This record gives sequence, C-alpha cells and structure tokens, in this order.
Amino acid sequence: MLKEAIHHRPKDNYSYAYDKDTLHIQLRAKKGDLNEVTLIHGDPFEYYEDKPVLHHSEMRIIRHDEFFDYWFIAIEPIRYRTHYLFSLKDHHNEQVYFAEKGFLQEIPYDIPTAYFKFPFLNAVDVFQAPEWVKNTVWYQIFPERFNNGDEKLNPPGTLAWGSTEPEYDNFFGGDFEGVIQKLDYLKELGINGIYFTPIFKATTNHKYDTMDYFEIDPQFGDKETFKRLVKECHNRDIKVMLDAVFNHSGYYFEPFQDVVEHGQNSKYVEWFYINEFPLKTEPIPNYDTFAYEPKMPKLNTEHLELKRYLLDVARYWVEEFDIDGWRLDVANEVDHQFWREFRQEVKQVKEDVYILGEIWHDSMPWLRGDQFDAVMNYPFTEASLDFFARGNMNLGQFKNQINHVMASYPQNVNEVAFNLLGSHDTPRLLTRCNDDVQSAKQLMLFQLTFVGTPCVYYGDEIGMTGGQDPGCRKCMEWDESKQDLDLFHFVQNLIQLRKDEKSLHPASKFRFLTLEAQPRIVSYERSTEDESIIVVINPDDDEKVVELPYSHSDILISEGCQI
Amino acid sequence: MLKEAIHHRPKDNYSYAYDKDTLHIQLRAKKGDLNEVTLIHGDPFEYYEDKPVLHHSEMRIIRHDEFFDYWFIAIEPIRYRTHYLFSLKDHHNEQVYFAEKGFLQEIPYDIPTAYFKFPFLNAVDVFQAPEWVKNTVWYQIFPERFNNGDEKLNPPGTLAWGSTEPEYDNFFGGDFEGVIQKLDYLKELGINGIYFTPIFKATTNHKYDTMDYFEIDPQFGDKETFKRLVKECHNRDIKVMLDAVFNHSGYYFEPFQDVVEHGQNSKYVEWFYINEFPLKTEPIPNYDTFAYEPKMPKLNTEHLELKRYLLDVARYWVEEFDIDGWRLDVANEVDHQFWREFRQEVKQVKEDVYILGEIWHDSMPWLRGDQFDAVMNYPFTEASLDFFARGNMNLGQFKNQINHVMASYPQNVNEVAFNLLGSHDTPRLLTRCNDDVQSAKQLMLFQLTFVGTPCVYYGDEIGMTGGQDPGCRKCMEWDESKQDLDLFHFVQNLIQLRKDEKSLHPASKFRFLTLEAQPRIVSYERSTEDESIIVVINPDDDEKVVELPYSHSDILISEGCQI
Repeated sequence: MLKEAIHHRPKDNYSYAYDKDTLHIQLRAKKGDLNEVTLIHGDPFEYYEDKPVLHHSEMRIIRHDEFFDYWFIAIEPIRYRTHYLFSLKDHHNEQVYFAEKGFLQEIPYDIPTAYFKFPFLNAVDVFQAPEWVKNTVWYQIFPERFNNGDEKLNPPGTLAWGSTEPEYDNFFGGDFEGVIQKLDYLKELGINGIYFTPIFKATTNHKYDTMDYFEIDPQFGDKETFKRLVKECHNRDIKVMLDAVFNHSGYYFEPFQDVVEHGQNSKYVEWFYINEFPLKTEPIPNYDTFAYEPKMPKLNTEHLELKRYLLDVARYWVEEFDIDGWRLDVANEVDHQFWREFRQEVKQVKEDVYILGEIWHDSMPWLRGDQFDAVMNYPFTEASLDFFARGNMNLGQFKNQINHVMASYPQNVNEVAFNLLGSHDTPRLLTRCNDDVQSAKQLMLFQLTFVGTPCVYYGDEIGMTGGQDPGCRKCMEWDESKQDLDLFHFVQNLIQLRKDEKSLHPASKFRFLTLEAQPRIVSYERSTEDESIIVVINPDDDEKVVELPYSHSDILISEGCQI
Repeated sequence: MLKEAIHHRPKDNYSYAYDKDTLHIQLRAKKGDLNEVTLIHGDPFEYYEDKPVLHHSEMRIIRHDEFFDYWFIAIEPIRYRTHYLFSLKDHHNEQVYFAEKGFLQEIPYDIPTAYFKFPFLNAVDVFQAPEWVKNTVWYQIFPERFNNGDEKLNPPGTLAWGSTEPEYDNFFGGDFEGVIQKLDYLKELGINGIYFTPIFKATTNHKYDTMDYFEIDPQFGDKETFKRLVKECHNRDIKVMLDAVFNHSGYYFEPFQDVVEHGQNSKYVEWFYINEFPLKTEPIPNYDTFAYEPKMPKLNTEHLELKRYLLDVARYWVEEFDIDGWRLDVANEVDHQFWREFRQEVKQVKEDVYILGEIWHDSMPWLRGDQFDAVMNYPFTEASLDFFARGNMNLGQFKNQINHVMASYPQNVNEVAFNLLGSHDTPRLLTRCNDDVQSAKQLMLFQLTFVGTPCVYYGDEIGMTGGQDPGCRKCMEWDESKQDLDLFHFVQNLIQLRKDEKSLHPASKFRFLTLEAQPRIVSYERSTEDESIIVVINPDDDEKVVELPYSHSDILISEGCQI
C-alpha cells in the first residue's frame, strides 16, 4: 500500500456538505492500489453499552486521474454530526485504518481525537449557488460589438459596422438598443442568461477602465434603456449578469483624478496604493495597477470608505435594475474579506443573485460558500482545447485532466462551474480550432453535455473567428449569408437537448466510459437514477464503429445529436 | 521520484502570507526522495524582451514527519503578487517541474495558467493574532474551585473548601473576590493571562449551561466585582479571557423556558432546533442539544435575531468590562458564518481582542484569518502525553507527530497555538503522568519552551492531581505545606526564562536535533538570527552523557534549567 499517496483532510473537496442533510466524503489513493475502502463513521456522542456506535459503509471509486483514484461516499449523518475513519485494503490484502492520527492497526474506540471529524452540518455554511443557474446557458456579450441599434449614441469616430478589423482603440457603436433588437435571436438560439462585459462609463471600447460606477456609458444608452433591456430579458426568461471591475478603476475615475490633481492632499489618497508623489506613469507607474497598466490604478478594497462605495455600487444595480448576477473582474487579486462582505451585501438585496469570479486557476479558497458561486472554469477550457483543438493531449491525459479538475472541488461547486471555451480575453473558439468547424462542434458538444453551466461567446455559434484580443472582439456578423447556420442549428439543438434531458442537468452524474480498442474516441455517460445519456465523440475524420459497454437490452436508444 | 507523494495547493499551510510582505511556500515530498527543490517564481505581469521574468530560489527541508519531507521558502513577491512552480531533483538526478498543471518537462513560459498562483498579498487577509498573545503565558481558572473570597456569596449547601472530592453537583464557593486575593500569587508565578471557564448565570458548578449571558452568576460576585477583577488584572499586566458558550444555552435560559412553556407558539422557537412538540427529554431529547445533554439545547446561530443577541453579548463584555479575549466553547459545531461575524464584531470594539476556539481536531478551516486567532492545541497535548507520560510513543514517533502538526498550519498560526497539557475537560497533568513529577516537569519544560502560547491549568503548578472531570476540578490547594513548591519554582523559572530569552519567543525558530546514539533523548533548538537555546530532555531515570551537534567554540553556555 502506498501510504504516501493516501490523502484526506476534512472540508473543501474531501468532506463537505452537499446539502443540509448530506455529507460527501472523498479519499485519494494511488491509482489501482486499493481494492476496498470502507468508511467507518458515527455520531461522536452515541454510545451503546459504553462502546461508540460505528457504521460501516463501502466507498467506491468515482474517478481517477494520472496518479490517483478518488474514493467517494455520500452519507446522511445522524443529528448532523459525524466522526469517521477509513478502513483500507489493498490488492495484497494488507489492511489498515486511516484517521486524523495517521495509519492505525486498530479502531481507536476510546480516543475520539484520533478520528477525522465533520463537527456539524450547519445549513448556512453549505455551498449553494442559486438554483436557476443550474438551468442556465450563458451567452457573453461585448456590448460595443454586438449590435448598433441607436446610431445617435455613436461616439465620435464610430466606424461602419464590421467595416474593418477591431483595434485596441476603435469603436463600432454597439449599444443596448442593439441588444434589445436581437433578444429574439438569442431566444431562438435558446440561451437564457446574458453576461455583459462592463457597461459603466469608461474611455475604452472594452470599458474595463471605469470612470463612474454609477453611470452607464453614454455610447450604450441611458438608465432607462438599460432598465428596459433587463425587463425585455426577464420577459423572455433571460437572466442578466454585469461585470464588476472592483480590482482597479480607470485613470479617469474621479477619486483617482483627485489624487492626480491634489497629490498627498487628496482625500482619496488611501483609495489607491500610491508608492510616491508626484505620480508618474513611465517607465512603470509609481502606483499599483492592474498588471503594469497605468490606466488601471489598483483599488484599495481594504479602505472602509472605498469599500462602502463599491458595496453600494454592487447593491445599486441589483436593487434599482434587478440584475441577476455579478461577474467579478480579476477577482483573485481583491481581498477575500471584501468578497465576503460583497456576498452578504448583494444576497441581502436579492437572495438568488449569482456571483461569478474571474479566476483562471484552481479556486477552492473562493468557493467555500462564503464568497463566490462559481469561477470561470479555464482549467476546463484548457484541457478541452488541448485535446479537441490543439491535439497536444491524448485521450487518457484529457480524461485525467477533466477528472482532476472535478476531484479538486465539491460536487455542488462542479454543478455550477462556469464552463467557457473562449471569451473576450482569448482567441475565438473556431480560431483556436484552426478554423476546423468539426473540432469546434466537438468542443461545444462536450461543453453543452458536461456538468456545470456553459457559456457561449457571442458569435461563436455562427462560426466567427478572431485571434487574441482585439481580434476576438469583431463586430457580430448579422448578415445571414455570412453566418454558419449549420453551426447555429447544431448549438441550438444541443441547448434544446440540454433543456429536455434530465440526465444533462448539472446535478446528474458524469463518468467517462472506456471503449475497448478505441484509444481516440471520447465517451461518457450522464445519468440520473432513471435514465442516462451516452455521448460518443470521434475526434478523427475516419468513420469508426464502437461497441458500447452495455447490452442492447439495457438501452432505449433515443435520437441522438449527429455531428 | 515518488510523484504520488508530492503535494502543493496554494493557500492554507502550503502558501500563505506570513505578514503583509512575506509569502511562505511549502512543498511536501516523500521523505528522503528529493535532494534539490527550487522555487521558480516571478511577477505574472513582468516580462523582459517578451520573456516572463523568473527568479530561482533554493528551498530547504524545515521538517519531516513519518512519510514526508516539508520543503520551505520565504519570499517577498515583487508588487505583492507571484506565480510559481517547483523544480524537483531526486537522488537519481531525475529532474522535473511541478506546477498547477501537473508534472512538466519544461517551464511553461507561454502558459500562465499552468503555474501555481498567489494572486495578491492583501494585508487584510493575513492571519494575524494580537501581538500581545505571543508574550502571554496563560493560566486557566475554574472559578468555582480557585478560591472562596467572599463567603456571603456561597450558594446554599456550599461545602467547606476542599473538604471532600469534587462531584458533578457539589459547590465550594469559589468567587471573584477569591481570585483577586490571589492575583499576587499568580503574578509571582509569572503568568500574564487568565482564562476563566464560564462566569455567567447558570445552574451547574461549571456554568456551561448559561441561563443569562448578560448576568454574572451571583455565586461569583456582581458586575462591580468583576470590573474590579479585570482592573486588578490589568494593573498587574494580566490579560483576561472569558468563555463564550454559544453552541448551546442552558435549559433555564429564558428563551428556551419560553419554548418549554409555550411550545410552537413561543416566539423563540427558531432560536433552537426543535424536532417535535411537546418537548421531552427522555430517552433522548427531541430537540438538538450538545451531545445528548437535555440541559444544553443547541442554539440556532443562523437565526438572525439570536445571532444579534449573541453578538451583542460578545460585544458587551468587551465594551463594558474591557476583557481581552473570548474562548469559544464547542466552537466547531457552530457555523463558520457566525464566527466570521463574531470576529468582525468584537475586533471592531477592541482591535487586539483574542479569539480562541475550542477544537480538539485539525483546525485549518477556522484559522484562515477570518475566524479564530487560535485553537486549543489538543494534537500537541496528545502527542506530548503519549511520549512523556504514557510511554506509548517512541522518540521518532513523537518528533513526527509534533512536526506533522506544525506542517499542517502556517507558521503565524503555530506561533499562537494555545498549547495545553490538560484542562477542566481532561485528567490532570500529574495524574496522567501516574503521579510521576519528573514526567510532569518534562512536559511543562517542553510546553514552556515550545512554539505557541502555553496554558497552565490551575493547580498543576503545585502538583495537584485528579482524574477525568469532576476529578480534575478539585479545590485549589492553598495550604503551602501541601503544595509542591519545588514544582512551583520549576514552573516559575521556566516562565521567567521564556520571558528573558528572545529565542523562546513564539516567532523564533524551532527544530528538533538528532543526537547520535541517543534514541530516547529529546533535543531541540529554538533560535533567532543572533542566539539560540538548546533544550535537552532525558525522559529516563538513568543519567546520560550527550554530545551536542555543535563544536564548543560555537556555543556560549548560559545557565540552564535543571530538572
């Protein structure tokens, strides 16, 4: 038995409340090393004839990655509390107990401190994203480039729609009116949530350099139009999520301008991280910024007054405009304490508001129930692209990576992971696929039948292309003759399938299948207790005949989704 | 290279802010497997000629336990942010990189998502216990049994001081006046913090069944006396910590009595977890309780009104009586959200108030800076007793256990761990040592020269005995002829030594030494940059000659502390 590989530490992805009654427990062991793992558990205070009452429950492997098997069990602890240890048996019949105290030869009946403990299942600590998110397919809109519906709002120098390539500093006049005009298009596609990149007053076309958090950028419309946009969305059962850029402001944010002007005497000095006066921007700014971008001075979110200001912002747009979610830009560079207060603040206004953090890395510390409901799941993105698009990962590695990401989080976190294949910050899906539509379809098929909530980047559904930004921020193509309508219908069908089939619901089970003698074909099952869907994806060009690991009598074949 | 043994996940004990400038990074590997670990790190946004700027820093092993070496480094990240990976080399010269993406053959220069990341070192998220705690030696008082200073307050049936053994329900009349009378004794001993078990109005002698959180139990005195007690303590530079029993109330807590009386119609129904009406206590209560104790109904700390009530309690005793700390009873069964608000509430009133949770297990989830400053370090207690008192652990196992506990937490957490050798909940130290004073001395020597803040349970310093409670709650022995004065002076000397020697400060380094051919002798070094203290403990009866792993010229021998 390879004891160095065995790992369990209560909380996070190893033991967590799945809901207010259910505890999930996971143990990691070397791949293939153990053949029996039993959870021995009981109420720490329950005794029978002076002996602690302990139950034995078999665990099973639910996934494995390159090095490890993940053993799993769900239990409903008596009176919401439990302590436990594991009985491990390997293939050589070596048997040992594993507890907080380490590896033991016997069950430490009389030493309660030796056990692992999940002290109490408090409902308020359960990680719980809004229920509606699980049924949501997101659509990301970069407002300057989606549709120009009101030419009167065009900023000076606005170019004709799609007349040229997007640049860092050109404008095409996309606006709210334009979005409203296209809501029926989105409804037809089937999405039911829109994530807007920033809409507040700013100087750039991307608006990540906020000037005024309480004002809408005039090129997009006014507050009345935005209110109407939200209403029109809600009328169509489409949720609305805005982008909160709280890590940094824009250079022209009034308080920062006050510091530029009054230096040390500005009353806003402590809203930022100023290293010396006078301020300078070259060769690198002498104040903290996002990256080294002088236009984006970092906000000191620890400062009580600034914090109150930003929390008021967060509150305002929910309270006054009834938005349904906040996406948080550069979320991991802002302090945890700020996000905890942010959550309390916005959930107080609207209990089921959704909070999505932009984090590109492993994100457990933000997903413990006290901060975010989800993060942008770039590890999913990268693994999927590596396999389907870039071809620099084989099937085994792909399955390992996906399983690894899933094993890193609680199941309720995975159920609402924000799974994207591209965004305004990356090259477009089709471009990443070297313009191979088949690969792009495979990726979207995987994304839309996987656990979590998918997001389509505007235009990806009609085969738009574009490299790293600004390339990926082209004007939406509205000329149907230039849209890939076959791709549109493919995505539309998948979204519909996802809505129709219970086994594609994020809370349904996911497992990769192993197809004999098919080292390239991706296959997995999504299932509830009653039904299941098997997805088989052939990433190659040649036709293949596969044998599913089921007898025919088990299966009621339904119409599939042809690629 | 045993890849299954290699572990690192950012935050918690693997990468954390030690202070607002310093990041500590730890990597775990199989014991003895690697001979070189290098941290490769840089600002994620710093490039030079289009290549990311990366620094190479050697890590070193700072401790090991049964299975693992722990490699460590402290760095000060440029602009408070860093991403990193590890270069690992084993004894067979196999070299590999280890990053968030897994094991890699090359540095992933162009794939920032492949790195581990510590996104930003936000000062407010740094775990930081009050500075004074690091210089504190605690003394735990069980008020009913420390000293009877005002006989007028004796509850009916009070027994003569020490006239009989302690029982679950007998009273001896200890009170605040009694404590005040003995403060000079405590000052002489050298302690500078008192932890009082509960003092609020309750029915039992231990007062863990609170009736009124805003009232002092009349057998101890009134608020004036308590105010005087705190003042007298502060005059002697002694801090005062009270016990908050917020997991459950007493049966006679007015709101619970209201539920007993009015059943479902009580407005306090939701302050508790009532499973059915009418309430019954037999055979087990039909409402949730601490353990199965009907006298201790569990409080629903998620309920907003009750939460406000308890936070007001927490605030009141700090604000009105200037207490310095709260010890939180059964802290791990109360929700995290409550404790987060608790921390905000009390630190608002008094910034350097100390928060100590009663948790007997591994406690990382409470020690991330948002909840507690420390927990009662029972894993330290158990390992120490196993080796020094019970003899069921050999030296290697003892060192492994202590190192394992230390490796489980950030260094700033270890520096303020509340290290106890016994309490009102365990048999007394000397009794656990089978009345062998030598073992008790060794344990206290270890405790008082170890990292963290030690606590002496009242009477242990004069050799009192007693088994599991109520045995451990005897009346304090004030008859000097019955006190072990030699032990008293031993403890007194150690406390003084701890105060005098910088290298015994909790922030000083700790490492076990290995003495050749001495499989039983415990030896360790505490050191600052300038000086160090070496402690050598012979747990056996026979004299031994040991050779320290230093040349004589290195050492300036100072007067030691003879056992």
